[in-house]
Amino acid sequence: MKKNKAITSRDVDFAQWYTDIVRNAKLASYSNVKGFTVFEPNGYAIWENIQAVADKRFKELGHQNIMMPMLIPESLLNKEADHIEGFAPEVAWVTHGGNKKLEERLCVRPTSEVLFCDYYKDVIKSYRDLPKLYNQWCSVVRWEKETRPFLRTREFLWQEGHTMHATAEEAMKETDQMLEVYREIYEDYLAIPVVAGRKTESEKFAGADYTLTVEAMMYNGVALQSATSHYFGNGFAKAFDVKFVNKNNEEEYCYQTSWGLTTRSIGGLIMCHGDDNGLVLPPRIAPRKVAIITYSDDLLEKAYEIRDMLNKGGIVSYVDDSEKSAGFKFAEAEVQGIPFRIEIGKRELENNKIVVARRDNFKKEEVSLDTDLVTYFKEQIDVMHNDMFNRAKKRMEEKTYVCHNMDEVKEVMENHPGFIKAMWCGDEACEEKFKEIRGTKSRCIPFEQEKVDTKCVCCGKEAKDMVIWGIQY
Amino acid sequence: MKKNKAITSRDVDFAQWYTDIVRNAKLASYSNVKGFTVFEPNGYAIWENIQAVADKRFKELGHQNIMMPMLIPESLLNKEADHIEGFAPEVAWVTHGGNKKLEERLCVRPTSEVLFCDYYKDVIKSYRDLPKLYNQWCSVVRWEKETRPFLRTREFLWQEGHTMHATAEEAMKETDQMLEVYREIYEDYLAIPVVAGRKTESEKFAGADYTLTVEAMMYNGVALQSATSHYFGNGFAKAFDVKFVNKNNEEEYCYQTSWGLTTRSIGGLIMCHGDDNGLVLPPRIAPRKVAIITYSDDLLEKAYEIRDMLNKGGIVSYVDDSEKSAGFKFAEAEVQGIPFRIEIGKRELENNKIVVARRDNFKKEEVSLDTDLVTYFKEQIDVMHNDMFNRAKKRMEEKTYVCHNMDEVKEVMENHPGFIKAMWCGDEACEEKFKEIRGTKSRCIPFEQEKVDTKCVCCGKEAKDMVIWGIQY
Repeated sequence: MKKNKAITSRDVDFAQWYTDIVRNAKLASYSNVKGFTVFEPNGYAIWENIQAVADKRFKELGHQNIMMPMLIPESLLNKEADHIEGFAPEVAWVTHGGNKKLEERLCVRPTSEVLFCDYYKDVIKSYRDLPKLYNQWCSVVRWEKETRPFLRTREFLWQEGHTMHATAEEAMKETDQMLEVYREIYEDYLAIPVVAGRKTESEKFAGADYTLTVEAMMYNGVALQSATSHYFGNGFAKAFDVKFVNKNNEEEYCYQTSWGLTTRSIGGLIMCHGDDNGLVLPPRIAPRKVAIITYSDDLLEKAYEIRDMLNKGGIVSYVDDSEKSAGFKFAEAEVQGIPFRIEIGKRELENNKIVVARRDNFKKEEVSLDTDLVTYFKEQIDVMHNDMFNRAKKRMEEKTYVCHNMDEVKEVMENHPGFIKAMWCGDEACEEKFKEIRGTKSRCIPFEQEKVDTKCVCCGKEAKDMVIWGIQY
Repeated sequence: MKKNKAITSRDVDFAQWYTDIVRNAKLASYSNVKGFTVFEPNGYAIWENIQAVADKRFKELGHQNIMMPMLIPESLLNKEADHIEGFAPEVAWVTHGGNKKLEERLCVRPTSEVLFCDYYKDVIKSYRDLPKLYNQWCSVVRWEKETRPFLRTREFLWQEGHTMHATAEEAMKETDQMLEVYREIYEDYLAIPVVAGRKTESEKFAGADYTLTVEAMMYNGVALQSATSHYFGNGFAKAFDVKFVNKNNEEEYCYQTSWGLTTRSIGGLIMCHGDDNGLVLPPRIAPRKVAIITYSDDLLEKAYEIRDMLNKGGIVSYVDDSEKSAGFKFAEAEVQGIPFRIEIGKRELENNKIVVARRDNFKKEEVSLDTDLVTYFKEQIDVMHNDMFNRAKKRMEEKTYVCHNMDEVKEVMENHPGFIKAMWCGDEACEEKFKEIRGTKSRCIPFEQEKVDTKCVCCGKEAKDMVIWGIQY
């Protein structure tokens, strides 16, 4: 495998490697607004494609988009006790508007549960108004101290779905369903395998009854909480007085969910698939699928012809016809993670052939120009997707360890971090013990349970659940 | 024409009519955050369709999307003198983040010229980096005192394009081109005729060299500034030090444009096309084209069959199968402005027919089920679009008056407001005189000039340009 000199090796310094990828693939850059980044065209285009996939699924499942205000009055944020406790320390406050001090300060939304509840209380009257299945695409602000592009920034982009239901069962079903949508997006589009499960009490969302999560593993074994779906019961509904009249003409509180997917997913795909030559984009989500590069300018006509044919067939392609050398163009397409590269050379063209190189494994093959290239790339996109998914899955399996005591946990996390499968008694004190080992936390109680032991890995008391543990981003 | 009792007649009280439409068509509602509205599903879906059309055109013309921070440090906003003077009085200030007072306060972006300049100064080095053609879709905040949904709210949604060029000519061409895109969107998709022209010096954007605008006329003769495209010369580039090295290896400042289209366009389509029965959606932009309503439940199967066929053919349709009467459903589809209604009745169905009613002119026709309905509606969408456009254009022409003196101006604006064509000497004092007449302002110096007089309508001195004047939203 070749090596791009502008990029630190991921095995030498993973954090620096990540920074190098983000900068060299032109995904994002730090702005001069502290803690805020600029989503540059290559990064934002990935988000647009993730949005397109997610938005389509949401709508197929009956959801509608809506837009709530970006600012929340302090009194409204304060209405649900657990929620304000969770978010108050990390919000930004607007205190002046139009040169006047505001009577009540407003925070820039860190999440919009309270705004949706405040709206729903006015528009939901009867069971006929339920369910309400609303979603919004927006940015939110959380005043993080340390920031890294896509992973932790003071502003990030996301969608937040907020639904209201007549029964707890229906709301819980929605919570499950939306987690499954997130699993699909990660596995079927981003080629990132995930473990789906439930967060422990101490790790759940502030104010939720419970939180479901999909957890992914990055190249270095560190965990990424990839998307979450929350069931609220009727706790917020009671705090905000969101009621409906049921079929028996009785008043009841609504049951609520919320669920979110963020631009952190871009950080996930970088760290799951990238290599020492740059970004490797999962081909189904890649904004541009094929880079077409000629060895000399007199072959450009053929390049444009192939580009137009591919674009017409829905395979987004471009010709790099800039004044650089072919080698330089190869490296640039590589660092930007373009899934396929078509090389057009004089000799191959004389034999009615082109060369197609795959970004993920660097394999090259000669392809006859008699081939239906649109069909060829459609198939190759699936092949590459599956290869990338399987490679990541194998790595996740290889870096998942069963531990029976805390010494084993320590050995894993200090030497070769990954996921740990270990039994847990359900006591928060044991969870706290894990944190002493490089901040290891429970990732989730996976839906697919395995009884790897009978005793709690920490205290030795009778175990309740098998838990996945990991160091997190 | 029938009359919906929930809606005030537009001829009786246009402002109340507007409020009634927004509420009854479920487009938006006031939130409990003062001055901020909730964009409800019916309103947001219109915006999504406008976005889709605009975004496609922007990308066809080589623009890329990007996302800048939502907050701007005060020192950055202050860098361009005219700009800060224009915006400082109407911004919201964030003074605290994460429970700490910030060293420097940050405003919520009212527009992002300064952020783009601050970014461009870092990434533009050579003529090879030009042009930069970036756009972002986001919401902005301006601390308005009086608010009306879509027309004037403290937060609104928009796109803001910000481009940098190597030459003034190229930047001016971009400014023209993007105004033309806006004209297309208004005329070809929203069926709203516009007058395109240049703003006077006193009405141009804060910091721009000049501002181009498309101006529309609402049902009541009031003008709506519908979208603007600004040429900045290199004024901001100098303030922000945005330079490039040209082909002769000399440093030069970049030439800049910006251009924006907002959710105000939704207010425009309401006030241009709506009637006393509710919203009338221009069919090309309508999120749902056809409402299918049966006279009895036993006909629902046919309704679903037609719906599925239309949806498959790209004509977004829905069946109202709720427990309401057919008459109630008709009224609801009408108030929401659905362009076409299919009525399915027993007798017609026995004759292999359905009834199609048009929302804009209430005309009904029987259509045989042997018809290719997808093709039928594709054609009808164009017919209805053209009819709506021509109706609005005729009204605009009828309500456009040539005036030769201020008494004539007064007569028009006080009795039957509309556009006034009148000659102007170019002196700001004359513009000020117009404001005394119900706040009449210059809308634009239209590209299509007519010499309707030789003297200035106000001072009688030699006239320079023909100006369109109007009362504005």
